[in-house]
Amino acid sequence: MKVSTRSQVPPFAVMDIVAAANARRAAGQSVLNLCVGEPATGASEVVRERAVQLLAGGDLGYTEALGSPALRQAVAGHYRAWYDVDVDPARVAVTTGSSGGFVLAFLAAFDVGDRVALARPGYPAYTNILRSLGCEVVDLPCGPETRYQPTVEQLEALDAPIDGLVVAGPANPTGTLVDRGALDALAAWCADHGVRLISDEIYHGITYGDAPGAEPGPAGAPTAATALGTGAVVVNSFSKFWAMTGWRLGWLLLPDDLVAPVDALAGNVTLCPPALAQHAGVAAFTEAGYAAAHANVAQYAASRRTVLDRLPDLGWTRVAPADGAFYVYADISSSGLDSRTWCARLLDEAGVALTPGTDFDPVDGHDWVRLSFASSPDVVAEAVDRIADWRTRG
Amino acid sequence: MKVSTRSQVPPFAVMDIVAAANARRAAGQSVLNLCVGEPATGASEVVRERAVQLLAGGDLGYTEALGSPALRQAVAGHYRAWYDVDVDPARVAVTTGSSGGFVLAFLAAFDVGDRVALARPGYPAYTNILRSLGCEVVDLPCGPETRYQPTVEQLEALDAPIDGLVVAGPANPTGTLVDRGALDALAAWCADHGVRLISDEIYHGITYGDAPGAEPGPAGAPTAATALGTGAVVVNSFSKFWAMTGWRLGWLLLPDDLVAPVDALAGNVTLCPPALAQHAGVAAFTEAGYAAAHANVAQYAASRRTVLDRLPDLGWTRVAPADGAFYVYADISSSGLDSRTWCARLLDEAGVALTPGTDFDPVDGHDWVRLSFASSPDVVAEAVDRIADWRTRG
Repeated sequence: MKVSTRSQVPPFAVMDIVAAANARRAAGQSVLNLCVGEPATGASEVVRERAVQLLAGGDLGYTEALGSPALRQAVAGHYRAWYDVDVDPARVAVTTGSSGGFVLAFLAAFDVGDRVALARPGYPAYTNILRSLGCEVVDLPCGPETRYQPTVEQLEALDAPIDGLVVAGPANPTGTLVDRGALDALAAWCADHGVRLISDEIYHGITYGDAPGAEPGPAGAPTAATALGTGAVVVNSFSKFWAMTGWRLGWLLLPDDLVAPVDALAGNVTLCPPALAQHAGVAAFTEAGYAAAHANVAQYAASRRTVLDRLPDLGWTRVAPADGAFYVYADISSSGLDSRTWCARLLDEAGVALTPGTDFDPVDGHDWVRLSFASSPDVVAEAVDRIADWRTRG
Repeated sequence: MKVSTRSQVPPFAVMDIVAAANARRAAGQSVLNLCVGEPATGASEVVRERAVQLLAGGDLGYTEALGSPALRQAVAGHYRAWYDVDVDPARVAVTTGSSGGFVLAFLAAFDVGDRVALARPGYPAYTNILRSLGCEVVDLPCGPETRYQPTVEQLEALDAPIDGLVVAGPANPTGTLVDRGALDALAAWCADHGVRLISDEIYHGITYGDAPGAEPGPAGAPTAATALGTGAVVVNSFSKFWAMTGWRLGWLLLPDDLVAPVDALAGNVTLCPPALAQHAGVAAFTEAGYAAAHANVAQYAASRRTVLDRLPDLGWTRVAPADGAFYVYADISSSGLDSRTWCARLLDEAGVALTPGTDFDPVDGHDWVRLSFASSPDVVAEAVDRIADWRTRG
């Protein structure tokens, strides 16, 4: 029987690492997992307590397709608190994680055959979702000269028109920001050219303040919420800053022309995001909710310092600037090994799991690896010791 | 800026009824809501209690893309218990509601341009999801002569090949079953013709035993789990029998050739279904979980009896046989009114909200309405009194 062509998604190289790590663990050997982009802490107490209250008798039935009014209002309040930007709650669409947000935004904005540009290296699901929806992905190779972010010059130089542009700041795997000026320039170019800008801001709040493009304020990075009026879409999530990965909760900020289409699509494609997560998620925006998340970020900052201070011992002379998120993307080409082999050997010989860069960059990723420092600081410190020691032995 | 053509999903007529009902309620007038397909009860105590325990300290992070091993095992056990069918847990994909299951199954099975046949009347999201994914929907008009279900004869008579067939039993809005012989015949025809059969079984367990095609046992309806070996896909959900609508949890049973594609797609499109719902959902398969669900079904049975016994008073001489689910689909053409007008007037003049048939059948639905008896039996009884009285007054 026929299987769809669009389901032939290339497997992630990290899955081989995860399988080998699980086998090591099952054999009683130690593994330090620095390959997943997942906070170790989980949701805050205040969110969990709210969920327990709701389970005692709250209505956990379907909500509106665009999410509960209370949560949409709370998200709008977050933009006032963090960015000093007014967002009409009617433009907030609560989604089933940012994954659900991307699917809805891509469906609403792009038809089969539309061309959407993306930075390489980048989060591989953008490409895989777009292709599964019949869109064409236009590669924007980005390197250190632009802090691994796309530029207006690159867009101008494309040999055919595009319909969309996805930018991410802080980005996965590089951690780099798009600064305010660059984001405004990209948004203006997109508005002028009828190109839908989609801004992935899921790592906002996980920033370290010392980057050239960092913004003042708790987000630490500029938002495209200021460009909703010219057609931009913002994607965000409760998974990273609020550490609510398994709750599957995120949101979109929508320009006027996409509100009704996303509403109609969501009602058919998802019905609604998870109700308990939505109702409890309102508590993420309380003082206690923010405080717990900021405490996590302080941990990431300590872990990041540990890694960056040890770069000479690691032999990593070229790393992307880790402006935000919880990743260090490092060039390991001086080892003479392909990143898949490098990662497999590191796991086998030192018990540390990193992610091969090929998952983020099929062209040049063989020279790169991604280290996630979302684990606890002691795990990160021990991992760095092991990698440094393995390098000296190697 | 461009909005996608595929997001131009026709709005549901019921949304006008819901808006009018909300306005009535806001004005202090009574409304009996029989328009939503949602159990009034919510999740069982045993599921809620398990969720509370997990919130006290369980891991609520990402699970495997195909779902937690414990839940996949529990679903497989459900097929042994209910159908006496062996299902390998490796073929179970836990999904974000049946909506998430449909999206993944359609993406894995069908490419842009593929043709998928559906019964009309039917659940409108099948059509809307398929079209948003670039597939062509092939209409199978179904009436009382086939209990509103598609037949092999209809498929044979199509003037062009199809790539897929969606069947639903019990179906929404008609409630009718596909009996064992008919389902086997459809599955065999699909296997012979390289057509992917997708069987929507989300109303299994909500059946009333007196239908010609009813199966012995708690499911009350035949499953296509027996046809996985020839390529069929089964879709199911925790929303209806287990009344866990807002939890967004469902599952697919997959044939061998779709396991890897669905795994790869799910990892990109959803990451994973909601973790708390998955871990707590295991408790749905305990004795207490089944018992609570069966108690709900006993209520639906009482409500259904109330409606069917009063058909003469309602003036409904043609209704689809309500073999299962919690719907009565009734012909109101003798009123001389279009179903949208009929529903609007019923709400305005008697305070009862039903769903116009046009949401399920754009061609003939103007003659039909859907009554949902998922509300509590006293609400259903009062609604029937009001409709009968309104008709006499009218």
